[in-house]
Amino acid sequence: MLTEKQLQNFAELAVRVGANMQKGQEVVIRCDVNCQDFAHLIAQKAYEFGAKKVHMEWRDEKLDRINMLNATKDAICDIPKYQTELWNYFIDRKCCLISISAEDPNKYKGCDANKLSAYQIAFQTARQLFRNATMSNYLRWTIVSVPTPEWAKQVFPNDPVNVAVDKMWDAIARIMRLDTPDPTAAWRKHIETLVSRAKFLTEHNFEYIHMKNKTGTDLKVGLAEGHVWIAAEEDGQDGVPFTANMPTEEVFTAPHNRKIDGTVVNALPLVNNGNVIDDFSITFKDGKVVDYKAKIGYDALKGLLESDEGVLSLGEIALIGKNSPIAQSGILFYNTLFDENASCHLAFGASYPTTVKGGNDMTDEQLAARGMNQSIQHVDFMVGTKDIDIDGIGYDGKVVPIFRDGDWII
Amino acid sequence: MLTEKQLQNFAELAVRVGANMQKGQEVVIRCDVNCQDFAHLIAQKAYEFGAKKVHMEWRDEKLDRINMLNATKDAICDIPKYQTELWNYFIDRKCCLISISAEDPNKYKGCDANKLSAYQIAFQTARQLFRNATMSNYLRWTIVSVPTPEWAKQVFPNDPVNVAVDKMWDAIARIMRLDTPDPTAAWRKHIETLVSRAKFLTEHNFEYIHMKNKTGTDLKVGLAEGHVWIAAEEDGQDGVPFTANMPTEEVFTAPHNRKIDGTVVNALPLVNNGNVIDDFSITFKDGKVVDYKAKIGYDALKGLLESDEGVLSLGEIALIGKNSPIAQSGILFYNTLFDENASCHLAFGASYPTTVKGGNDMTDEQLAARGMNQSIQHVDFMVGTKDIDIDGIGYDGKVVPIFRDGDWII
Repeated sequence: MLTEKQLQNFAELAVRVGANMQKGQEVVIRCDVNCQDFAHLIAQKAYEFGAKKVHMEWRDEKLDRINMLNATKDAICDIPKYQTELWNYFIDRKCCLISISAEDPNKYKGCDANKLSAYQIAFQTARQLFRNATMSNYLRWTIVSVPTPEWAKQVFPNDPVNVAVDKMWDAIARIMRLDTPDPTAAWRKHIETLVSRAKFLTEHNFEYIHMKNKTGTDLKVGLAEGHVWIAAEEDGQDGVPFTANMPTEEVFTAPHNRKIDGTVVNALPLVNNGNVIDDFSITFKDGKVVDYKAKIGYDALKGLLESDEGVLSLGEIALIGKNSPIAQSGILFYNTLFDENASCHLAFGASYPTTVKGGNDMTDEQLAARGMNQSIQHVDFMVGTKDIDIDGIGYDGKVVPIFRDGDWII
Repeated sequence: MLTEKQLQNFAELAVRVGANMQKGQEVVIRCDVNCQDFAHLIAQKAYEFGAKKVHMEWRDEKLDRINMLNATKDAICDIPKYQTELWNYFIDRKCCLISISAEDPNKYKGCDANKLSAYQIAFQTARQLFRNATMSNYLRWTIVSVPTPEWAKQVFPNDPVNVAVDKMWDAIARIMRLDTPDPTAAWRKHIETLVSRAKFLTEHNFEYIHMKNKTGTDLKVGLAEGHVWIAAEEDGQDGVPFTANMPTEEVFTAPHNRKIDGTVVNALPLVNNGNVIDDFSITFKDGKVVDYKAKIGYDALKGLLESDEGVLSLGEIALIGKNSPIAQSGILFYNTLFDENASCHLAFGASYPTTVKGGNDMTDEQLAARGMNQSIQHVDFMVGTKDIDIDGIGYDGKVVPIFRDGDWII
């Protein structure tokens, strides 16, 4: 368990380094009802730093599961108008958004994959405007995590639940640098390191990234024309910087959705909407998935890959060294926020307009011409094994080694 | 603490006897995030009895307090459109509504009374359409309660919090008849008794109710023309009966808002929006408040009585014997749902259109002509002392004794 001071520091990180809330701004805290205590801490902290008003977007994973198990597909897929009105309000008011991510990885275990996938499509379609507002940095946003009993039990299944929750808090404290005297300063320094790596990669303007390991991955990922590598800190459209993921260890950019070839094997399980997908491989040709296999969660993977056309290509490639604090913790969190920062990853679905120069001012057609991918989905999956080698290949064919044996060499 | 079976019975009471949810209906559960466990039980139970879909209207009293203490009056009074859209949706879909009432009586303790009262006006104004939909029985609705630590601590201040919560559960189990083998059957019988008393009073068609005791109350409350006494069960506009309050012990009707004269002294504290008002008296002339005093919470009473014109008259008169199970428990709950069922009470503000014959089909003008009161408020306060005598006075001047020494004699 954290000390009161550490909890306060954590809430401050979310408000100031994460969403970088500005004085007089309205704030949305999006979290499950089971994380209400930390939400209240963040609300209090937001007011200390001058928030105008704090709104809640409550989630309730236990009710979601009850609904998914009991309501009909039609009822589930009927996304209520009050939900979109909530999001529209947040856009209208230019709120900044602080999400607390603490999903039970087994939230939807045993639910009908077909109903679940139909719901996902309906939900993501209804959420499109709002997702655009965050993905294009029109709104500043951040995600942080706190333990819940259900989640901690999945991560530490052999411990009693209170021990599991304590272990989870300890891990989060280290990963979030809450064990340092000045976590905000520690984060500023960390962000600087990541940003310098992103700058190096952007300046090289590689045509391809080539990933290869001994467990079956051999994939050439073309990069979008005019791509920019981004790390840790981005600018909102209002010019105010923010850190969308806390923790973050990744340096990422946009693939070219017509230039991806080869096969990639997952390195960690993919948890999508409460379903675990594992031991899977994906084969691409000319930017599109042409084959896939999964020993665990095949139906869930199938449901995901059938949700629209764009989900069959990639929207993100992200590089993370095996010596990142999260990778070093050796913990599998079953939560993207952490696991994506333990391992290089790719994402099925939409790319971030911010990962090409001037992307926010481009039309969909202009983005597509650059190789930027569009989809209602954006789902990360981990591919960075401890032995992975990664090279950059220039437009002139020149090869620049980036990773050897799973870690940065630049 | 209740057994699992008792909790299940409790949830069933809310769904079947309370809101009387019909197969295929959408359900709204309105509750604080701190009551999520019971909300999930109700959701599950609703599906067992054929709900189409379960929605949540989350409240968060801790955040409400943080907002009230920190946001400006303008920010607080700016009721977001997503809030009214939520209520409009519930009306459009003809949802039935199950509220879990478990407010911390000190929720707003120490907050600025002026800001609080401005907020109440803004909130109730925004909520008018929805309130009309429930008060006119267009939507079927019910209120039930479960203990929370903050509330239990207020009710049993000398006990450790876990003991206080246990005592509260025990009290609720008895009051809700969950200690009987078949609570649903026990409720049906109880409802029958109350309904027969209401019938007796309606048939007498009294012009006035006269309340008198030894602690200063001497009040003649005229009754609306064509009034109907209601108890326990009412019909929704769709003809389906429901029980709006669980527990309920009251038999109530509408005062005539131009025929109230005399003085009434409160018998129990009034908790309004997290403020305790006590030791107060109200004097009426020709149906309107012309004077009021309060030793505790004067500002809160003043704020309430200044919220609109209609709040200065009465919208409800309700009779409850001193031998009701709630009165017998001897517990002051600081919660209207219970305390109003321990004691005869009156309500400042709006009357229920259902308490005159054909009221739901009348215009506001027609209702007003009958003496029905209109206001954005409806706030109960308890006046039934153990020594109260109550008479009915007919249009012919005939006096019929109804209560002697605080209990029914009919």
